[in-house]
Amino acid sequence: MDEEEKSLSLVLFSGTDDKLSAAAVLAVGAAAMGRSVNVFLQYYALDAFRADTIRADHDLSPEATAEQAPAVKSHAGTHWSELFKQAKEVGEVRVHACALSMEMFKLEKDDLDPLVDDVEGVAAFMADATGPMVFI
Amino acid sequence: MDEEEKSLSLVLFSGTDDKLSAAAVLAVGAAAMGRSVNVFLQYYALDAFRADTIRADHDLSPEATAEQAPAVKSHAGTHWSELFKQAKEVGEVRVHACALSMEMFKLEKDDLDPLVDDVEGVAAFMADATGPMVFI
Amino acid sequence: MDEEEKSLSLVLFSGTDDKLSAAAVLAVGAAAMGRSVNVFLQYYALDAFRADTIRADHDLSPEATAEQAPAVKSHAGTHWSELFKQAKEVGEVRVHACALSMEMFKLEKDDLDPLVDDVEGVAAFMADATGPMVFI
Repeated sequence: MDEEEKSLSLVLFSGTDDKLSAAAVLAVGAAAMGRSVNVFLQYYALDAFRADTIRADHDLSPEATAEQAPAVKSHAGTHWSELFKQAKEVGEVRVHACALSMEMFKLEKDDLDPLVDDVEGVAAFMADATGPMVFI
Repeated sequence: MDEEEKSLSLVLFSGTDDKLSAAAVLAVGAAAMGRSVNVFLQYYALDAFRADTIRADHDLSPEATAEQAPAVKSHAGTHWSELFKQAKEVGEVRVHACALSMEMFKLEKDDLDPLVDDVEGVAAFMADATGPMVFI
Repeated sequence: MDEEEKSLSLVLFSGTDDKLSAAAVLAVGAAAMGRSVNVFLQYYALDAFRADTIRADHDLSPEATAEQAPAVKSHAGTHWSELFKQAKEVGEVRVHACALSMEMFKLEKDDLDPLVDDVEGVAAFMADATGPMVFI
């Protein structure tokens, strides 16, 4: 694996706790293996990174059934925001807010959790996206 | 980034306007950065590319909440079909309909919007998918 | 395409029949083109691989509309579990259960269909994920 393949880009679209947890686990795993991680927050995922509500209940994916939901909700795992924090401590992980989605939700950089490093457009994100790209 | 990594493959499964917009933004961003884009339309995404209804309301992802939906719906952005058109004008962007999904929805090539270049099987798609592959 | 790019990693999160079918078609297509495939089962996708219910009805994505669902459900395609079996016969396809999701659903390896090769953590999965990574 060369340097470019080591990089992992995560385009986060969904804002539910289960998908954000899955994304955070991939970020932690990649960072632990020495891969740099490039996160791009769009739509509902961006909305979930608001400073005042990042720890609020963001529900589960609509596909979660009545049998599955309790197992997922009661699992005493680390909150996804904490996992992203750990990933940033362990490795080179950058979290970018999509400029277009910021405009859509009328958000300013200060409205977002400090986990978010900056606001950027899709072209800037694409320029850095040299390895696998995962849409969640 | 070598030639192969510059290529971006988008497997589109979802047919809602928000996910198709997110996909179109990635396609435009990649094309603008000189990357070739290889789109494969399956299931609900293929259904959304019907010639007669491509501009119809395709709703939002079921996870959109009552608070989020109005912001997304009222955002005066360019329609995703227009973004795909722009991406094709800017760069090398090919849109393929999945043969299996065509059969599923009993569609013929002429039923689809001219944005769709051809119908192909998954093996042909895979043969061209040399760079990152994104499933939306 | 070099050896590493030939590998394809599929992170399966969704447990609905349509998304699992789309994933299985990608796995078969990749295996047929001589690519190795590395599957990682999380959340609802892991739950769908239970030995006793793998062939049960796992419903469709919540976005399927009343117009679309009948076409998808009535399409006489090969079941996704059969497609994964074919992919394993054709090529080098490994199916791993995510250790964290196993814990979440209180599952043991023996509860899962024999299609699943082993249980592993995300770091082990990441170490093998050298090519494109697709999240479904």
